[in-house]
Amino acid sequence: MSRYPGTEHEGRIAPDRLHAAVQAIFEACGMLRADAALLAETLVAADLRGVHSHGVLRVPEYVAKLRHHGVDPQGRPLVVSDQGAALVIDGHNSMGQIASFYAMAKAINRARTVNVAAAAVRGSNHCGAMFYYAMQALPEDMIGIAMTNALPTMAPWGGKDKIVGINPLAVAIPTGEEPPIVLDAAFSYSSHGKIRIYHQKGHPIPSNWAFDSEGQPTTETERAIHGLLQPIGEYKGVGLAIVFGLLSSMLSGAAFGTELGNMIDGPQAGQDGHLFLALRVAGFEDPARFKERTDAAVRQIRESRPIQEGTPLYAPGGLEHELAQAYTAEGIPLNDVTWQGLDDAARELGLPAIA
Amino acid sequence: MSRYPGTEHEGRIAPDRLHAAVQAIFEACGMLRADAALLAETLVAADLRGVHSHGVLRVPEYVAKLRHHGVDPQGRPLVVSDQGAALVIDGHNSMGQIASFYAMAKAINRARTVNVAAAAVRGSNHCGAMFYYAMQALPEDMIGIAMTNALPTMAPWGGKDKIVGINPLAVAIPTGEEPPIVLDAAFSYSSHGKIRIYHQKGHPIPSNWAFDSEGQPTTETERAIHGLLQPIGEYKGVGLAIVFGLLSSMLSGAAFGTELGNMIDGPQAGQDGHLFLALRVAGFEDPARFKERTDAAVRQIRESRPIQEGTPLYAPGGLEHELAQAYTAEGIPLNDVTWQGLDDAARELGLPAIA
Repeated sequence: MSRYPGTEHEGRIAPDRLHAAVQAIFEACGMLRADAALLAETLVAADLRGVHSHGVLRVPEYVAKLRHHGVDPQGRPLVVSDQGAALVIDGHNSMGQIASFYAMAKAINRARTVNVAAAAVRGSNHCGAMFYYAMQALPEDMIGIAMTNALPTMAPWGGKDKIVGINPLAVAIPTGEEPPIVLDAAFSYSSHGKIRIYHQKGHPIPSNWAFDSEGQPTTETERAIHGLLQPIGEYKGVGLAIVFGLLSSMLSGAAFGTELGNMIDGPQAGQDGHLFLALRVAGFEDPARFKERTDAAVRQIRESRPIQEGTPLYAPGGLEHELAQAYTAEGIPLNDVTWQGLDDAARELGLPAIA
Repeated sequence: MSRYPGTEHEGRIAPDRLHAAVQAIFEACGMLRADAALLAETLVAADLRGVHSHGVLRVPEYVAKLRHHGVDPQGRPLVVSDQGAALVIDGHNSMGQIASFYAMAKAINRARTVNVAAAAVRGSNHCGAMFYYAMQALPEDMIGIAMTNALPTMAPWGGKDKIVGINPLAVAIPTGEEPPIVLDAAFSYSSHGKIRIYHQKGHPIPSNWAFDSEGQPTTETERAIHGLLQPIGEYKGVGLAIVFGLLSSMLSGAAFGTELGNMIDGPQAGQDGHLFLALRVAGFEDPARFKERTDAAVRQIRESRPIQEGTPLYAPGGLEHELAQAYTAEGIPLNDVTWQGLDDAARELGLPAIA
């Protein structure tokens, strides 16, 4: 989790109201009711967990994909190859969320019998936050792993050509009484979206977020936007991005890196790739013992000493879990830009305003 | 790959001579001939690829494990659970290399029929560099993934208790004509071994390598040695270390984090855990097409523009591949400390000196 600078006007909305409004928008774009509901659910789930960068902020962009940029509102993902623990899914140019949910469900189903399964996806599109698919595995007492290819925004280490995506990875691990362990991280320090927010506010960015177009670290948002994202851990982070990007695209025959498109023209519709794995705990270990031990690991982190007294410490996903509980009770805070985007999308589609 | 500061006296040795000498040392420790040969092979392979931190430098430490610290020189790993694509291996307190090679071989064998397989290991010990096991998958046109639990050297983000290991991950991806794509990275910026080398030489360390024992960044090696390693990418790197550590230990019932031991007393013998996955490319995609595309990805990186003209750019594992070719031809360079360790081990065991 990361924080944004400054405070801003926020309006709160109950998750189910937000869900209904966003579903209506996607139905008005021609999506089937169940698909629109699922897509809305993935976005609201991101906002609930405080991952606003992948929440309903994305609605205008997704409406544009569906109405103007060639994504098929009624695209139907299908299994095109099924061999043992290995599945290949063609998203058939559906919204990435539709293809990804379907693929993870297929991997989970296969893991019910063979304990480990992998579903490689091609023919997909931007699929939002990866944690959602990794977490699909949790109610089944399975570990979920989700990864995706992304538009290139980084250079190989020592280079200055934008040919590597930040290619996020999510891992969800079942617990018993404690919040599930859920990591969702891209291999860059920051993101274009975050740098744009700093740009709007006139804040400089930390020196480890971006390189200018010549590969030199910069704190100027203008140079950063036209430059490169910095990986975490220098050559390690780029290396991780490269291998997880290859896994996300090459097993299914999806586009990789620059084949997918670029940050100026955007992605080519229906070329994206992802990879989902499900590992059934009971195939390896007694699930009760497993969850007792993961609970203990979460507690050990929470009860360890913070640098600054009073700072709460979290296992991966712990803070997001707390936010989801709070926002379920108190409503989801959305900023002005997000509200405006929702209102504009509703108006464009002839729907009533949400607020 | 990372570089060490300064130059030092180096002696070169042919890989097969080094292998024979190291094998003899481990045989003299009571290992079976084939096991000693495999253990020597993994260490020489690390030196060949320039990963000297995990090469024959480790011989004295491994001799101590075998002779004084309770690792069973003749421990035999065995499959204790075999369910579909999921295997659990008990290393039976063998050297970690023996258990790991066996486990990856079993995962590969299972992936021949079901295309994806995972082997979780318990009852193991330090297993050296992870790339070796990931690369076992390559001749089979499989993707290999290898990860391990490690002694805790990091704190949760915002904390100062040493409860998280750097828990390295290796991924090997087949190519056709280009060097295989091989990533092997721990989730810390640096390592205790590297900081000790800077300490010996009186060099300060970069400010992103370590925290002091209060969780503050330090460039002083003395404080760093008694402090904490810094993760790559702040909370992201710690999160990655936590989830890959959990995957490496909890599926097999191995010790996790502080259960394994600490950096002062060392690990408890026979408690370590690892996880190995094999994904058979042909289960998903035509291997010829896959390898054409991974070749193209490697070439795209190599042919992209460096920041400083003339600097070669590599896909993960490319530099290591070049070093292995050079060292095979010209001999492996070993520094004085490593030579001394080998000589001391040979002498302790009544063997002739190596040089």
